[in-house]
Amino acid sequence: MTPAPIRVNEIFGPTIQGEGALIGQPTVFVRTGGCDYRCTWCDTLHAVDSAYRDEWHPMTPQAIMMQVDLLSGGKALTVSLSGGNPAIQPLGDLIDLGRRKGYRFALETQGSLAKDWFETLDILTLSPKPPSSGMETDWQKLAECVAAAGPDTKTVMKVVIFDDADYAYAREVAARYPELQLYLQPGNHTPPQPGEEDGGIDMAGIMDRMRWLVDKVTTDRLYTATVLPQLHTLIWGNLRGV
Amino acid sequence: MTPAPIRVNEIFGPTIQGEGALIGQPTVFVRTGGCDYRCTWCDTLHAVDSAYRDEWHPMTPQAIMMQVDLLSGGKALTVSLSGGNPAIQPLGDLIDLGRRKGYRFALETQGSLAKDWFETLDILTLSPKPPSSGMETDWQKLAECVAAAGPDTKTVMKVVIFDDADYAYAREVAARYPELQLYLQPGNHTPPQPGEEDGGIDMAGIMDRMRWLVDKVTTDRLYTATVLPQLHTLIWGNLRGV
Repeated sequence: MTPAPIRVNEIFGPTIQGEGALIGQPTVFVRTGGCDYRCTWCDTLHAVDSAYRDEWHPMTPQAIMMQVDLLSGGKALTVSLSGGNPAIQPLGDLIDLGRRKGYRFALETQGSLAKDWFETLDILTLSPKPPSSGMETDWQKLAECVAAAGPDTKTVMKVVIFDDADYAYAREVAARYPELQLYLQPGNHTPPQPGEEDGGIDMAGIMDRMRWLVDKVTTDRLYTATVLPQLHTLIWGNLRGV
Repeated sequence: MTPAPIRVNEIFGPTIQGEGALIGQPTVFVRTGGCDYRCTWCDTLHAVDSAYRDEWHPMTPQAIMMQVDLLSGGKALTVSLSGGNPAIQPLGDLIDLGRRKGYRFALETQGSLAKDWFETLDILTLSPKPPSSGMETDWQKLAECVAAAGPDTKTVMKVVIFDDADYAYAREVAARYPELQLYLQPGNHTPPQPGEEDGGIDMAGIMDRMRWLVDKVTTDRLYTATVLPQLHTLIWGNLRGV
C-alpha cells in the first residue's frame, strides 16, 4: 500500500532546538503545512494560513527521510516534527522508517488531535494554547493525547505566556498534569510578518518578560515549572530556516 | 560528632538555574568559598580568590538548610551547590540533611577532586576546564569523579568554549565519555570585575559566539552535544544574587 503523502512546508537543519525539553540539542526540523488553530500571535503563519499552501508540498516518508539524511550527513539525530499542527498529517510511517535508521523523533502539537502513532515518538510536547491565543482548549482532547502517547514516550507540557491570564492558564495545566514536566515560555511579542521573516526582535523586551516570568514562578513557588526563552529567536531573530 | 563547618560565600534564590542540564529550573544556590583552580576568565572571583575570604562564612549543614528553607518557603526544590569548587567542602552531611527534607541536590565542579558523597547527589555536573582557562586537566581525577558518582547520580559534562582550542578539548571530552551528555557553553568574555558585579554584558557578542558554536557542532555532526548560553547572564547581566 502506498503510504499517504505528508504535506511539508519546509525541512531544514541541522540546527539546535530552540525551545522546551530539547533546548540546545542538534536537530533537523520537518515542518508540516496546515493547522486547525488560528492563534492571534502565530509565529509560523506560512505553515498555517492556507494562503501559503503553494509553499506546501506532498511528500512520501521515503522522500522526507532522504532529505533529512542529506542534511544530517547520514548520521542519525533527533528529528523535530513541527507545524502548523503536525498531528493532522499521517506521520506514523515516517516515524517508523526513521526509527529503523536510528533517528529519534520529537513532535510538538497543541493537543487538539490524538493519534495512535504518538506512542512511537521519543518525545511529545503538548503546547495547549492560553487565552491570549484566542483559542479554546478542549481538555478532553488534550487528555486523549497524553493517553495516546502512553508510558514509552516522554510527554511534556509547554505553555506560551503573554500575560497574567496566560500564566493562570499554565497553572491550571500544572494542576491537571502534576506528573508532567511543564515548560513556560515568554511569547514572541514581535512575531515575523509573512515576507518579512528576517525582521529583528526586541531582545530587551524578551528579557523583561523572562524576569517577570521567573519572578511569578519563584514567588508562587511553582518549582515544577521550567522557564525558558525561545533560544533560536535570541540567536537568529525571526530568520527562517535556522 | 559535630559536623565540619562548610565555608559559604553566598546563599540566594529561588531563581532559575542558568546553565546546563537544569537550565530554566527553579533552584536555590549555595555557593561555597575557595577553589583549587585559578582560571584566567573566572566569573566568580569573589568565591575563589582568598582576598575575598572575609566574605566566606563557616556554616553548619543545619544553618545552611535553615536559610535554604527560608528562601524556598519550606517547599523542597533543587539546591545548586556551586563555588569556587564546592568539592573541597565537606558537603555530605548537608546533602543527607536536605534530602531527608525532600530537597534535591545538584553540584558543579571542575572534576579535580572526587568525593564519596558524590553518589548522594541527584545530578553531578563535571566542568573540566579547557586550555583558555590556563589550567591543566588531570584526566585520572576526572575519571575518579565519574566513578565516585556511580550509577544512581546523573552525571553530565559541561565545557566552556572561548576558541578553537577549547572546542578541540571539548571533543576530547566527548570522545572519552561518549555515554555522558555533553553541554557546550560560550564563555563569558565580559566577566564581572570584583566590585563591579552589576556591569553590563555584550549580548551581540554572546549571540555571535552561539552562532559560531552551533555551526561547529552541526558541521562536525557532533549531535550528542547540547549548546546553551548562560541564561542568567542574558537575563540579569553580571548582577550577583539572581
